[in-house]
Amino acid sequence: MGKARLEAFSDGVLAIIITIMVLELKVPHGEDLASLQPLVPVFLSYVLSFVYLGIYWNNHHHMLHATRNVTGAILWANLHLLFWLSLVPFVTGWMGENQFAAAPTALYGFVLLMAAIAYWALQQIIIASQGHGSLLKSAIGSDWKGKLSPILYLVAIPAAFWSQWFSGGIYVLVALIWLVPDRRIEIVLSASEDA
Amino acid sequence: MGKARLEAFSDGVLAIIITIMVLELKVPHGEDLASLQPLVPVFLSYVLSFVYLGIYWNNHHHMLHATRNVTGAILWANLHLLFWLSLVPFVTGWMGENQFAAAPTALYGFVLLMAAIAYWALQQIIIASQGHGSLLKSAIGSDWKGKLSPILYLVAIPAAFWSQWFSGGIYVLVALIWLVPDRRIEIVLSASEDA
Amino acid sequence: MGKARLEAFSDGVLAIIITIMVLELKVPHGEDLASLQPLVPVFLSYVLSFVYLGIYWNNHHHMLHATRNVTGAILWANLHLLFWLSLVPFVTGWMGENQFAAAPTALYGFVLLMAAIAYWALQQIIIASQGHGSLLKSAIGSDWKGKLSPILYLVAIPAAFWSQWFSGGIYVLVALIWLVPDRRIEIVLSASEDA
Amino acid sequence: MGKARLEAFSDGVLAIIITIMVLELKVPHGEDLASLQPLVPVFLSYVLSFVYLGIYWNNHHHMLHATRNVTGAILWANLHLLFWLSLVPFVTGWMGENQFAAAPTALYGFVLLMAAIAYWALQQIIIASQGHGSLLKSAIGSDWKGKLSPILYLVAIPAAFWSQWFSGGIYVLVALIWLVPDRRIEIVLSASEDA
Repeated sequence: MGKARLEAFSDGVLAIIITIMVLELKVPHGEDLASLQPLVPVFLSYVLSFVYLGIYWNNHHHMLHATRNVTGAILWANLHLLFWLSLVPFVTGWMGENQFAAAPTALYGFVLLMAAIAYWALQQIIIASQGHGSLLKSAIGSDWKGKLSPILYLVAIPAAFWSQWFSGGIYVLVALIWLVPDRRIEIVLSASEDA
Repeated sequence: MGKARLEAFSDGVLAIIITIMVLELKVPHGEDLASLQPLVPVFLSYVLSFVYLGIYWNNHHHMLHATRNVTGAILWANLHLLFWLSLVPFVTGWMGENQFAAAPTALYGFVLLMAAIAYWALQQIIIASQGHGSLLKSAIGSDWKGKLSPILYLVAIPAAFWSQWFSGGIYVLVALIWLVPDRRIEIVLSASEDA
Repeated sequence: MGKARLEAFSDGVLAIIITIMVLELKVPHGEDLASLQPLVPVFLSYVLSFVYLGIYWNNHHHMLHATRNVTGAILWANLHLLFWLSLVPFVTGWMGENQFAAAPTALYGFVLLMAAIAYWALQQIIIASQGHGSLLKSAIGSDWKGKLSPILYLVAIPAAFWSQWFSGGIYVLVALIWLVPDRRIEIVLSASEDA
Repeated sequence: MGKARLEAFSDGVLAIIITIMVLELKVPHGEDLASLQPLVPVFLSYVLSFVYLGIYWNNHHHMLHATRNVTGAILWANLHLLFWLSLVPFVTGWMGENQFAAAPTALYGFVLLMAAIAYWALQQIIIASQGHGSLLKSAIGSDWKGKLSPILYLVAIPAAFWSQWFSGGIYVLVALIWLVPDRRIEIVLSASEDA
């Protein structure tokens, strides 16, 4: 089975998820700029989720680039990832409309955590299907970002009940870690791994 | 006529159906975890429908893989299948928002039944268009899952007015039957068919 | 410029239009079958529009199949067609929620008329771009369906203020004319054209 | 990395943006034509935004046509453009529902300005990645439209607080500038540039 249709379906779902999130930005009834003020947290959470979904689309793109054959297990692991990502608009809306209250901020982190686990599982299943000399395995290298992100989410989820700004800061930090191009950091880290 | 655009259109519609279902998960007004409680049945019905649509996408993918030429009849039989699947978000929302009440649970089964019949009809039309030595016909084998599912739906629909948990259990069972990889069960069943 | 991306974009827009129409089927608050009753006209108008959009997708598919090069004029004529089709969910919802009242039924016909004109204009632009021996021109033949449909819409629009059932019947009739496979009718008509 | 999936994802997002805008055209409760009157400004802003998104899709199509390799920077510059375009349905709805009031009309221009800047940045990144003899650079020529549009938006944004019709007129003018085929104007302008 080819991977073209898997890519097309994933692109479709990701494109819809990233776009319907904007529907949570409900048109305000007032006509002055002040009526936009309650929307500021909704907008900020939208920006954060847009960046996260952009990162997922980007990484998903690269992962499938290093994939040759698509098995039944890969199809389902991919749907599992899309399931957790499909919940991002819901938790984004809940977090934004409640000005980053504790519970919504924690749940946002939980969905990010489950998506990260689902992404990792999909990666492992592709690597296992490729056997020795897996192209994907050598492409991801130490995968320190993939390993660090769930740990940071696990810190951020309970921390939301103590300080939601701390948790929010961690979510921004994880996004930045993935946004910054790999090479320089990877060299630093591979050096620190040698030491 | 090629099948690439039929696949692309079907992928698009399925990707949208699977994603807009999440819009039924309305953002709650409260900001504590307790305010999520009324959403639990909506979430469970969302998970069930997500799995069903994933199964349909997966099977549709395989079916078209074994299809060479697309005729006018195939195009319309495919649209007929997409029509019934497009009603899944509606019945999912109705069932979830009413805590699996009798009538919504029965209607959910009815839409699944009609989708199963539409899938079967599409399959027959493709097989008929392929004539003797149809690749799809040999690929689906005895198609016991395709034959068993409508019977189980026919049991579940009236049963919803007696016990919606029994009906819900059947819907989960049918999903599991399709989720479990074929081979082992198929060997068992082909053996039982020999006997 | 190739036509693959024009097809992909049109498929995407048509897939979304056909799917978001189902959002007009608002989940009822009651949990018994009787609470579905007010949705019956909404459902019927959904079925009608689903069939119309299926016909447009189908015909659009064939039209582009007979098209080689995509010009700027073709791109804009295609967007013009998609614009009118994008209004179908709106008029479908208005007609359905008002039990086929006069004005909504007339507006529904007006949008169908404009879409038919946009389709015809796109067809003419493609034929003009192909010059003598246009493949599309010979493929559509006398195009009696394309010529008859706008006339029937023009009858149905004012008739809605006299009897909306008469107008609705015309909309169903036009859909049936396009659904019935061409060959037999075409032979009859080409014979009548000879006479 | 190929550009096919970048095109597919962008097409998907643009197709969804252009289509969900129509959801702002809320079905009115009345059943006579007069009940459509409050929707007239919503409809007009929908038409304007539909044309803008059509222009973006069209130009995006051409830009990627002149692009060979897709880098990480191009992926993110493209997502940045899609982000601003994803806000178009929101500002369209706000402007339409408030009968082109000052603040919404200014914000509409702001989002158009940011989208124009994002488009220009994407263009520059692609040109830079192509090095000397960039195909895209020679294809866009003097890019006077791309340079003039942000200036016109910068005039229109503050002007909205003085006369929203003046601002709206500028938005229509910019759309017309892009809609009119290039060649004749380009010759005029290249002549005026020579002088």
